[in-house]
Amino acid sequence: MRTLLIVSHPDIIESYSQQYFLNAIKGFEDVTVHHLESHYPNWDIDPKKEQELLRQHDRILFQFPFYWYSSPPLIKHWQDVVLEEGVAFGKRGGILEGKEFGLILMIGVSEREYQAGGKEQFSISELTKPFQAMANKTGMHYLRPFEVYQFPYLEDEQKMDILIPYWQKLTMENNNSLATRESWLIRQLQQLAKSKSNSEEARILQFAMEIIEENRTNMDGLQIVLDQMYHE
Amino acid sequence: MRTLLIVSHPDIIESYSQQYFLNAIKGFEDVTVHHLESHYPNWDIDPKKEQELLRQHDRILFQFPFYWYSSPPLIKHWQDVVLEEGVAFGKRGGILEGKEFGLILMIGVSEREYQAGGKEQFSISELTKPFQAMANKTGMHYLRPFEVYQFPYLEDEQKMDILIPYWQKLTMENNNSLATRESWLIRQLQQLAKSKSNSEEARILQFAMEIIEENRTNMDGLQIVLDQMYHE
Repeated sequence: MRTLLIVSHPDIIESYSQQYFLNAIKGFEDVTVHHLESHYPNWDIDPKKEQELLRQHDRILFQFPFYWYSSPPLIKHWQDVVLEEGVAFGKRGGILEGKEFGLILMIGVSEREYQAGGKEQFSISELTKPFQAMANKTGMHYLRPFEVYQFPYLEDEQKMDILIPYWQKLTMENNNSLATRESWLIRQLQQLAKSKSNSEEARILQFAMEIIEENRTNMDGLQIVLDQMYHE
Repeated sequence: MRTLLIVSHPDIIESYSQQYFLNAIKGFEDVTVHHLESHYPNWDIDPKKEQELLRQHDRILFQFPFYWYSSPPLIKHWQDVVLEEGVAFGKRGGILEGKEFGLILMIGVSEREYQAGGKEQFSISELTKPFQAMANKTGMHYLRPFEVYQFPYLEDEQKMDILIPYWQKLTMENNNSLATRESWLIRQLQQLAKSKSNSEEARILQFAMEIIEENRTNMDGLQIVLDQMYHE
């Protein structure tokens, strides 16, 4: 699975949150990071080039700061010029059909305010309806959004804890079963082991992978026994 | 009541709908038409100037083509730079508090598609939540939106029929009672009469106003009788 991460931030160098997350995915092989403001400082988006990028990926993600309950203006401009009728929707359209779409939102207000009775009054699900409608129109499967609230105020450990689900949102199959999470973890450990020159560390990682795979084999065996009992 | 009509359209000269509606309000005394792309071709919005404009008006309207379920990017940029914390919301904010806010949407797809089961899946009320949340945050009263569907395909008479509710959205008190509509109509007739050099036409308009006012007086009289009966 190849993921296209379309990032928009008017001043990304100054954004602590954006830098933190983008640094954490450097070298990810199956993720293309595409920062719109860097590619198009004059906003002269090339629709054909963007459409080609979309074709080459299976999961499309928008990552941006959630100002005024929506995306930065360049994402909207991208939608207006790239998602053409006859290409992204309508007759002879459909280049996005069957792909996955998701939002990664950096939010400045606390989570509890996004509900009836909260200061922001509406939930994130309500406020992101325009993106859900876009996924609907272009035939994409809408993923659960990945929401980060008041990131700069978190403790260091809390920040690191967010990275695992972030990596998963970018690279893990959209299926939260134990089997999916295990095979995702094994792939991560394999990549990590490859990069280790220290053979002691590599051996520990190898050992962790063996344990996980052994557990998986045991679980699969138990599943077979359960299935047989159920059918008898 | 003074109305600020903030219009955004990336190519307004070529837009038949925008030209039709803007031509229909030329000379309206209490309406300030503010086309963002003309004022800021380089997008260098002046927040202080915009905030001053907002202060001078009682009703703020956004008029734009509803592409990808949202506004053109320049409206979003306007929100991001003009609606500053400490001015439009938050401590020492509140310049919009108590004003009215509304959307005037030019929509390219037919009305019936904007519902569950329709092609667009969601209603206009659902898709415009980000603007409702903006009104909430800045303390504005959110008006019913004014929605125009597939305007270029309408018959000439249907197009003209839309102008009356459009004028009302721009200039009539937010109260659809008969009394409000009558007094709004009398003000329109007075303005029209002033502009007539032909005394015959002016006399007909004067006569129409007298009839409406006489009806109003009769209605008020009836209301007083009804109120007394109710209290006896």
